[in-house]
Amino acid sequence: MDEIKINPWEVSGNFDDKVYTKIVNDFGAKLIDDKLLGRLGGLTHGLHPFLEDKTFFAHRDLDLLLDAFENGEEFYLYTGRGPSGDMHLGHLMPFLFTKWLQDKFGVHLVIQLTDDEKYLVKDLSEGQISKFTYSNVVDILSLGFQPANTHIIIDSIHAKTLYNNAIKVARHLTASTVKGVFGLTDSDNVGKFFFTSMQSVPAFLVSVMKKKNVRCLIPYAIDQDDHFKIARDILPKIGFYKPASIISKFLPSLAGNSKMSASDKSSAIYLSDDAKTVRHKIVKYAFSGGRDTADEQRKYGANPDVDFSFNTYKLLESDKKKVQKIYSDYRSGKMLSGEMKELAVSEINGFLERVRANRAAVEEKFADYLFDEENPF
Amino acid sequence: MDEIKINPWEVSGNFDDKVYTKIVNDFGAKLIDDKLLGRLGGLTHGLHPFLEDKTFFAHRDLDLLLDAFENGEEFYLYTGRGPSGDMHLGHLMPFLFTKWLQDKFGVHLVIQLTDDEKYLVKDLSEGQISKFTYSNVVDILSLGFQPANTHIIIDSIHAKTLYNNAIKVARHLTASTVKGVFGLTDSDNVGKFFFTSMQSVPAFLVSVMKKKNVRCLIPYAIDQDDHFKIARDILPKIGFYKPASIISKFLPSLAGNSKMSASDKSSAIYLSDDAKTVRHKIVKYAFSGGRDTADEQRKYGANPDVDFSFNTYKLLESDKKKVQKIYSDYRSGKMLSGEMKELAVSEINGFLERVRANRAAVEEKFADYLFDEENPF
Repeated sequence: MDEIKINPWEVSGNFDDKVYTKIVNDFGAKLIDDKLLGRLGGLTHGLHPFLEDKTFFAHRDLDLLLDAFENGEEFYLYTGRGPSGDMHLGHLMPFLFTKWLQDKFGVHLVIQLTDDEKYLVKDLSEGQISKFTYSNVVDILSLGFQPANTHIIIDSIHAKTLYNNAIKVARHLTASTVKGVFGLTDSDNVGKFFFTSMQSVPAFLVSVMKKKNVRCLIPYAIDQDDHFKIARDILPKIGFYKPASIISKFLPSLAGNSKMSASDKSSAIYLSDDAKTVRHKIVKYAFSGGRDTADEQRKYGANPDVDFSFNTYKLLESDKKKVQKIYSDYRSGKMLSGEMKELAVSEINGFLERVRANRAAVEEKFADYLFDEENPF
Repeated sequence: MDEIKINPWEVSGNFDDKVYTKIVNDFGAKLIDDKLLGRLGGLTHGLHPFLEDKTFFAHRDLDLLLDAFENGEEFYLYTGRGPSGDMHLGHLMPFLFTKWLQDKFGVHLVIQLTDDEKYLVKDLSEGQISKFTYSNVVDILSLGFQPANTHIIIDSIHAKTLYNNAIKVARHLTASTVKGVFGLTDSDNVGKFFFTSMQSVPAFLVSVMKKKNVRCLIPYAIDQDDHFKIARDILPKIGFYKPASIISKFLPSLAGNSKMSASDKSSAIYLSDDAKTVRHKIVKYAFSGGRDTADEQRKYGANPDVDFSFNTYKLLESDKKKVQKIYSDYRSGKMLSGEMKELAVSEINGFLERVRANRAAVEEKFADYLFDEENPF
């Protein structure tokens, strides 16, 4: 555990279930137990693969949020993205999960693009960040989000509303707290000290706009927990609900590491990768749960749970029976690693084509997706 | 000097010329010497009383700004107000000086109302601050500013432009610097750490908008110097000129102390004070440079330079010959303290009536005065 480092700007270490459990306990969140999972599955008529395999494994007040929902209270979803590079499959998957939640509960979704944060913490120009911001939004929306219930907040575009509300949070947030929680020091810039206030705003913005308290559920990866721990401390002090959250582990990278890296283009699959590139990357780099030889694979079978190709296939294939059969065949050794890889290649390429086909329509309707401060829902 | 405390949020101590000189030297500004004063007076065809009596006594790069002006370069003025209470005469006087500069040089003026700052540092509600902000702007504009060359920035209204530019400054500003300069500690809120970035923006905003470097001259009281010292350090790093400044001492209060207090209503004259109240305050509280008895006054004369009534009269009376005569008569003992007070009462009441008469017109044209981000000049 000594080498584990985890905050919104730095993640390092080897993450296994024991580590994740310890982190969640240290952070004061709760594991999603079978009872809560069953309850959620009952409301959503089945579970998303990310819930089944415990990629989304922890929560804060998800039980309270479901209580409220069952009592007829509305809620909305809020998630985000820091636009400091192109998006790869590992970045897009959590948005697919969020879309699943949105569809199942029939609720609104706010997506925040923290371009100001990236400007403050990365050595990138305004121009570079602005390019990434636009292309990231288009990538995300091309997953099939609808303008009617999806609301994009871009910090630089919505800065007026964000800043005017962020100071309400900032007034209650000392430098000391920010240092303790994020590990900032006096050498960090004052924008970083202030920034978490900006990221907290979408968690109560709809309540401000509607002039009544509306609950918020935030799906995020564990490295963002610091931000929302602070939001949960302060929001009740200024008259709002604590946001609830559903928290994921880091997705394994193509090569099986704990987090897909955005810095090495060969370590991940990008939306811009053509079919041939995708096949090359999967065949060459994708971490396999299969055996070293075809003979051994036939004899002992694979471990699909750690297999990048199988896991990606599972996320993209909506026919659960098909997935089940592939799992058994691969598990038993009836199916070889190479075949699993080819199946994943075909599934991923189909998915990327569908997403890319949506881009033009999304770009045309871009303005319709922007959070409308006058009429948020 | 031990008891001198001076920063944007706290001023205490006894200020005399020796103290002011030491502060200016410590801060790294320069005293306005006779040569610079003569040069300025040559360009403005005479000097404002605040320059004659060295109320505006120090500067940063005013000489460079005049060089540029004489070479045909344009510049603009920027000043501001923290709207945490009603404005009294002592608050309005520096705006009269700024208006004088504006008229003499025929330049644009940006006035920033830092309502966000007051929310972050004072125990005031949004509603209270918003009320003060509006009434302060109307008070200031009623001094006779013209919409064509006067541009009001209200932080909450212009937050988008301010925040998007403030992060350019914040990126270069460490918590350590802010602590060193302002004396902030880890117990202060993160909004205060960030805020100086917001106050720096009007010093380069016109350059951003016009996409070319435009020089800026900032008149302010010495307690604001910390903000602009930081702005001067950082602006060149992001491609803009260091702002020049012209710096004032604190104005003496009604009772002769170093700074008019906004907390005790009887210690200052407010725009809302009727003629009778003004007379009562001057007769009862105004610090007099006259002698204790009429006989002594006739014999030894008064010291007009420390006399609240004379100094206020001098600022409001544009006929310099009249002022000169009053000075001589009061100095020589020909004029008594009571007469000096009555003259000041009449001058102040005339001034307040003229200002109040402008309020309705200003309120009607309020929107025309707001800084237009699309078309700043």
